[in-house]
Amino acid sequence: MTSLYAIIMAGGSGTRFWPASRRERPKQLLPIGTLRPLIVETSARLLPLIPAERQMVITSARYVDRVRELLPDVPAAQVVGEPVGRDTAACIGLAARLVQRLDPGAIGVAMPSDSVLSPESVLLEHLAAAAAALDAHPTSLLVFGIAPDRPATGYGWLRRGARLGEFGGQEVYRLAAYVEKPDLERARALLAGGEHLWNAGMFAFRPAAMNIAIALHLPRLVPGLDALADAWGTPGWAAALEQHYPSLPKISIDYGVMEKAADALLLPLPLRWDDVGAWDALARMLPPDAAGNVAQGTEVILDARNNIVSSTGGLVAIKGVADLIVVHTPDATLVCRRDDAEGVKALVQELERRGLQRFT
Amino acid sequence: MTSLYAIIMAGGSGTRFWPASRRERPKQLLPIGTLRPLIVETSARLLPLIPAERQMVITSARYVDRVRELLPDVPAAQVVGEPVGRDTAACIGLAARLVQRLDPGAIGVAMPSDSVLSPESVLLEHLAAAAAALDAHPTSLLVFGIAPDRPATGYGWLRRGARLGEFGGQEVYRLAAYVEKPDLERARALLAGGEHLWNAGMFAFRPAAMNIAIALHLPRLVPGLDALADAWGTPGWAAALEQHYPSLPKISIDYGVMEKAADALLLPLPLRWDDVGAWDALARMLPPDAAGNVAQGTEVILDARNNIVSSTGGLVAIKGVADLIVVHTPDATLVCRRDDAEGVKALVQELERRGLQRFT
Repeated sequence: MTSLYAIIMAGGSGTRFWPASRRERPKQLLPIGTLRPLIVETSARLLPLIPAERQMVITSARYVDRVRELLPDVPAAQVVGEPVGRDTAACIGLAARLVQRLDPGAIGVAMPSDSVLSPESVLLEHLAAAAAALDAHPTSLLVFGIAPDRPATGYGWLRRGARLGEFGGQEVYRLAAYVEKPDLERARALLAGGEHLWNAGMFAFRPAAMNIAIALHLPRLVPGLDALADAWGTPGWAAALEQHYPSLPKISIDYGVMEKAADALLLPLPLRWDDVGAWDALARMLPPDAAGNVAQGTEVILDARNNIVSSTGGLVAIKGVADLIVVHTPDATLVCRRDDAEGVKALVQELERRGLQRFT
Repeated sequence: MTSLYAIIMAGGSGTRFWPASRRERPKQLLPIGTLRPLIVETSARLLPLIPAERQMVITSARYVDRVRELLPDVPAAQVVGEPVGRDTAACIGLAARLVQRLDPGAIGVAMPSDSVLSPESVLLEHLAAAAAALDAHPTSLLVFGIAPDRPATGYGWLRRGARLGEFGGQEVYRLAAYVEKPDLERARALLAGGEHLWNAGMFAFRPAAMNIAIALHLPRLVPGLDALADAWGTPGWAAALEQHYPSLPKISIDYGVMEKAADALLLPLPLRWDDVGAWDALARMLPPDAAGNVAQGTEVILDARNNIVSSTGGLVAIKGVADLIVVHTPDATLVCRRDDAEGVKALVQELERRGLQRFT
């Protein structure tokens, strides 16, 4: 089988897991409903198919050292720090160039560092199937779609096109269209129709195919990526990143490339997936107690129902309360409603407005 | 005027302010709705009338060092550490002996270290009035009664007897009877009747009178107290405390002495008093914001109503919640209902049951 390279995208700074996540310690570097930091789980999940020396991480410059500590077997040069975030087209475009330098015949598999997928065996089978499909269709780009189990309004959806055939034992389709985050009624229809999947931000491609697609659909990316690919591994690498990366156009790979690619493939992934978007994700990731509470860390729960509890470096004790999110860290405690997990963002903004940045 | 000595009773280990209060750091050593630790507030409040050299603290042996740090002007020998708590009769009985040794003609004023009283001027006027009453009735014991402003069921009440006269500008009465903590209906009747006051655990007496009352009503206390009074100030003091204190009968001054004293006096205190019994006390001590939240420490509150918030060594951020108590400390967070402030005790017991004593 063609060699696979993993491109782990770890640029996010997500404030929605405050106070566990901070500017200097984003969620991908933390265990969230997991034993190990999310990025470690993402890397480890791939190891049976993609050893660490074929993994690459594109992250923010300020997280590079920590990522190298967490993933010591990933070659240091393959942990790349963006001086500024330029969205996924720049990130994947650069990674494609670097994979091409490492092994021009390889296939790159790009995925977020902070999603949770299980079972691992199903994921790996489908990555192998993606490789088989791209062996047969070497100029195509492939997007993975998660088989939906609820009418989710928080994700973009992907419409399945014509069946292309079976590769590696899995059905592969044409990608017919991207569907913007739907309202609930539309999401119900998408779910019922059976022709739509969730966009999990996971892609597979030969680097040459990605380079061509970028040249066609996002030509403004090309000069910067060319310069960066040339500088990689030279003493001028750090300076080149500082010089060229900030000027790359900021656009997602979906809008910038995939939607415009005429022959994109779609591979459905029938597995449990979570984008670990906010604290309410814990309720999907951890088993509840008899009263519906889920907890990570050390906690004491008395007469309380349906709470989500997380403690770092200490303990949470709750009594007689319901439907809350309670998060303890040594210097900050969060309490909000379970149905308002997104509200954490507003709290973090309020902290900044009040000059309390030392807590963010 | 006769010299007054303050006897500040600081033996409590109160778990109801967990997680701020811990076995090694009870509430009297903490600021609770106050800028300074409660015991510092109690001492400072008395200073215009009772200088530090005439203040005495009876506390637990393990808090002696911290009390001496907090009250550096109180002579070290006057901070006495009980090897074990033996309730208020032993505490006040010992203090009376020690005051007698310091100044046989003085008057002792005993009070808890962790109550909050205001305005200070009214308190001091009434302490002076108590001294005047005891100058006129030197063999009597005097109990202060707080003028009630609500039908409180959590306190013992005191029934006013015959008016004795005016001393220091204040009306002084006979103490007619102790009333056990009433139910709500009875408390309403007590409040409406106008003849009852709250028992705040505050007393005044000449040491000789207290010694006589103890000899009459609690003679089992006498041998131990005699031995302790003899040893105070000698190299054998620490050993004497260890030897005699644990064998003193454990009984409150109210049950053991005051209820039985034939000629006890009652001096009403028309001031704001709070026994700072549990977290809900903060709502009586601190001004609320427009949505009814009260907070001490650093906090951010968004769209939340009627919460009680305390943070030590960090921050509490809450959003969209109501009627909660939220307390942050670096290693533990508490969340419970505002109407269940007493429930903290059950949580602390549960921590101990689960072997989580490192948090208690």
